[in-house]
Amino acid sequence: MSSIKDRADLIKQAAAQMGKETYKGTAAKAQQPRTEYQKSSPKIATLEEAIRKCGLKDGMTISFHHHFRGGDKVVNMVVDKLAEMGFKNLSLAASSLQDVHAPLIEHIKNGVITEISTSGLRGELADEISRGLMEKPVVFRSHGGRGSAIRNGDLYIDVAFIGASSCDPLGNACGFSRSENAKSICGSLGYAIPDAHHADKVVVLTDDLVEYPNTPSSISEHLVDYVVVCDSVGDSSKISSGAIRDTKNPRDILLAKQAAKVVINSGYFNNGFSIQTGSGGASLAVVKYIRESMIEKGIKASFALGGITAHMVKLHEEGLIDRLVDVQSFDRAAAESIMKDPNHREVSAISYASADEPSSATHFLDIVILSALEVDVNFNVNVLVGSDGIIRGAIGGHPDTAADSGISIVVCPLLRGRIPCVVDEVTTLITPGSTVDVVVTEYGIAVNPGRPEIMERLKAAGLNIVTMEYLRDRALSVIGQPDPLPFGDKVVGIVMNRDGSVMDVIKNIVEK
Amino acid sequence: MSSIKDRADLIKQAAAQMGKETYKGTAAKAQQPRTEYQKSSPKIATLEEAIRKCGLKDGMTISFHHHFRGGDKVVNMVVDKLAEMGFKNLSLAASSLQDVHAPLIEHIKNGVITEISTSGLRGELADEISRGLMEKPVVFRSHGGRGSAIRNGDLYIDVAFIGASSCDPLGNACGFSRSENAKSICGSLGYAIPDAHHADKVVVLTDDLVEYPNTPSSISEHLVDYVVVCDSVGDSSKISSGAIRDTKNPRDILLAKQAAKVVINSGYFNNGFSIQTGSGGASLAVVKYIRESMIEKGIKASFALGGITAHMVKLHEEGLIDRLVDVQSFDRAAAESIMKDPNHREVSAISYASADEPSSATHFLDIVILSALEVDVNFNVNVLVGSDGIIRGAIGGHPDTAADSGISIVVCPLLRGRIPCVVDEVTTLITPGSTVDVVVTEYGIAVNPGRPEIMERLKAAGLNIVTMEYLRDRALSVIGQPDPLPFGDKVVGIVMNRDGSVMDVIKNIVEK
Repeated sequence: MSSIKDRADLIKQAAAQMGKETYKGTAAKAQQPRTEYQKSSPKIATLEEAIRKCGLKDGMTISFHHHFRGGDKVVNMVVDKLAEMGFKNLSLAASSLQDVHAPLIEHIKNGVITEISTSGLRGELADEISRGLMEKPVVFRSHGGRGSAIRNGDLYIDVAFIGASSCDPLGNACGFSRSENAKSICGSLGYAIPDAHHADKVVVLTDDLVEYPNTPSSISEHLVDYVVVCDSVGDSSKISSGAIRDTKNPRDILLAKQAAKVVINSGYFNNGFSIQTGSGGASLAVVKYIRESMIEKGIKASFALGGITAHMVKLHEEGLIDRLVDVQSFDRAAAESIMKDPNHREVSAISYASADEPSSATHFLDIVILSALEVDVNFNVNVLVGSDGIIRGAIGGHPDTAADSGISIVVCPLLRGRIPCVVDEVTTLITPGSTVDVVVTEYGIAVNPGRPEIMERLKAAGLNIVTMEYLRDRALSVIGQPDPLPFGDKVVGIVMNRDGSVMDVIKNIVEK
Repeated sequence: MSSIKDRADLIKQAAAQMGKETYKGTAAKAQQPRTEYQKSSPKIATLEEAIRKCGLKDGMTISFHHHFRGGDKVVNMVVDKLAEMGFKNLSLAASSLQDVHAPLIEHIKNGVITEISTSGLRGELADEISRGLMEKPVVFRSHGGRGSAIRNGDLYIDVAFIGASSCDPLGNACGFSRSENAKSICGSLGYAIPDAHHADKVVVLTDDLVEYPNTPSSISEHLVDYVVVCDSVGDSSKISSGAIRDTKNPRDILLAKQAAKVVINSGYFNNGFSIQTGSGGASLAVVKYIRESMIEKGIKASFALGGITAHMVKLHEEGLIDRLVDVQSFDRAAAESIMKDPNHREVSAISYASADEPSSATHFLDIVILSALEVDVNFNVNVLVGSDGIIRGAIGGHPDTAADSGISIVVCPLLRGRIPCVVDEVTTLITPGSTVDVVVTEYGIAVNPGRPEIMERLKAAGLNIVTMEYLRDRALSVIGQPDPLPFGDKVVGIVMNRDGSVMDVIKNIVEK
């Protein structure tokens, strides 16, 4: 306009005062339709290209999540490729490992994988490691502890490989797919979220490349470096494998009913309570039995946390549980629920259970029901190593939820066959007894002397309250004092407490 | 166990090798139910406490979002309190300001607020600023440009004040509430998300404190320092105020129909296309008219972006638009849709439109329909300053979407009363002509000579294609050459390009 002849000068002056450039023009517009633009996404790569572009080197750390549990195909696919490409001395940081990962044995023998950190080990791989397969001990962490370790740098991840049931060309990734071509579903990707945020490089592997925008998504495009399309990231029919099963065992049902009575009379079963049930048939089944009481007493839960199951989804859909807070979908019903229900919320491992995250959900948890391989007279719990000294489980969120909840209830049979589950001292310390409030067995219920108010309430309700010593003696009276385990001198596992300290070691088993 | 007598030594040894402590025990369990634990959240504060605890000092920068548009109550509430507390020389960084913010005039006169950055200004405040109210010029940025500036530190925010329709005691905040006590709704909190991520301190103000976990939520607890409960954060009945209205104006309807024809014949109206409509009656109304053609031709859109309206929600619910990607809910229907529909996705300003974010949604946008106060013969657009030199609008996402889209269509009447909208040179440059592809007026459609392929397609479709010079001459022939505007010598506004460079300045108006 004629009245602003000095416009250019004023613009220069303003820019100089702000320490900025003056505007120099805009690049020519991209003119192809966006469907074309998408196809040219520089993030799409083959697995080999992605690995090369990430700059992976011998000795670095790679990470994986275990949301597909026994159906996971990503760990074996990636490690096979890394072996083929000649990598050595890699450190494998998984959120957990399962039976399906037995092929890692060969990669360990060949020096491709020389370190492992995980929440758990099962099957042949666990067996071999228990017998001394690896030079360096496996580092075991709880889910919350792993989140903390990733965030604070104790566990530095160079490249995270994240299996996703859908991903768009930009990297918006998800544990389910809304497309017609959906091949897999695992639900929450909660354990992979810390990896996505903190790893140096992030590769998403997907069996369903969908159009942008893949929404809602668990992993944001901003966090993802490469997207690899593959045939299958996991067999969804095997999500509810490992420790998760719907029990038909009469003893488990008895235990679940007893645990439900403990919940109901604990003082924490009030309107607005929150609850988590760990894996294991009896602890999962408790939900069924408290449902009736909720309806009868008009009590509703504010949220259910953790591994979310079909039982929890049912109560939520009935209006008995307001929100589901899901770090891991324990079955297909849960995975499908998180896909369609906005009140079914995904959380990262950190927001779920990290001790150093003040607002992690475990800090708001009233009641947790957990299983155990062994409990000792001091209420210490072992969920990792069998009474034969062989690793056969996972720490999971056990110590996290026990420590942070209002009341932690461990459900455990007195014996499993000829193996005692109540012992003098646990084979391996996973969850400190100071955080375990009640132990439910088929021969009585023990309450931690540190929680006299709970003991009073349960006694008043007429439950059969006994001591841990009574339970131990009862177990011993049936099977006698077991022989000492044939441990060798090699440390094959180190158990980290959720605060990052070393809590226990696991020695090798020399014979069986 | 007797076989691991050396357990303690091995634990010490393992800890030493890892550079870690050995486990020293766990703190006593919190024993009160979580509903009690929540009430003791250290984040809950009065507004004054929150301000003090944030360490706000004279000269610092405070930020606000404008999702409540004309109904916003947070800016005035907070600045009144800051004035009462005696703060001076504050810099106010709003995502936009409206008529309702006229009380800022007094705070500017009293030296409480001495700098402003915003996307737009309207009403009395805009009028006063245009006449030279402030010592320092207002800095105007586009929505994407503001996101970039916050992320790269050009716009450093000391304390972000975020109005939310629900928030739990931990800070999980949301633009709607699912509780029975819901008082307000604004939908997406997209413009507040960069503030929440990058501000030194974050205060959420809410009129509905709900129980943890408030889920789904827009702002995560991890980002929030204080939660302030107040009577009202906004009047939701005024969300669709300002530039947003459903037009009944016959000229707007004519323009919308013409624009729809341009869309349909542009070459970008293909299955899977994406679309955004800016504020302004005609551009919003276009959606109605392309709907018919979508049904007829069996064309579906992959996503609609931006300010989401009831029209867009309708098409989405009819299955004509797969996803809604929402940085701002333009009306109540949109706000309610984002509350209930997982395929209605919230995006931050950065993920929406920032130039330096490769995966921002605008990079995947086919078609954008925009309004204008003025367009000049070089296709430059002004949406901020009236032809009288008074600021009366907002940059919004105009330059962001024009630059990144496949085709940008500006809908603009030739004249508004006696004011020409097609001019020789825009009063203020907001969107560079190199990014504007088509201008639709009631006297013909001009196509940027840089897009000959679009010109061919529209000619082939029989549309009335003219030149910008023809339109300018036509406007001049009706109203004659306007007098130069009575600008003074003071720079009252600086217009930043989305790349962070200075693009234009706005001078004060000395009379009217």
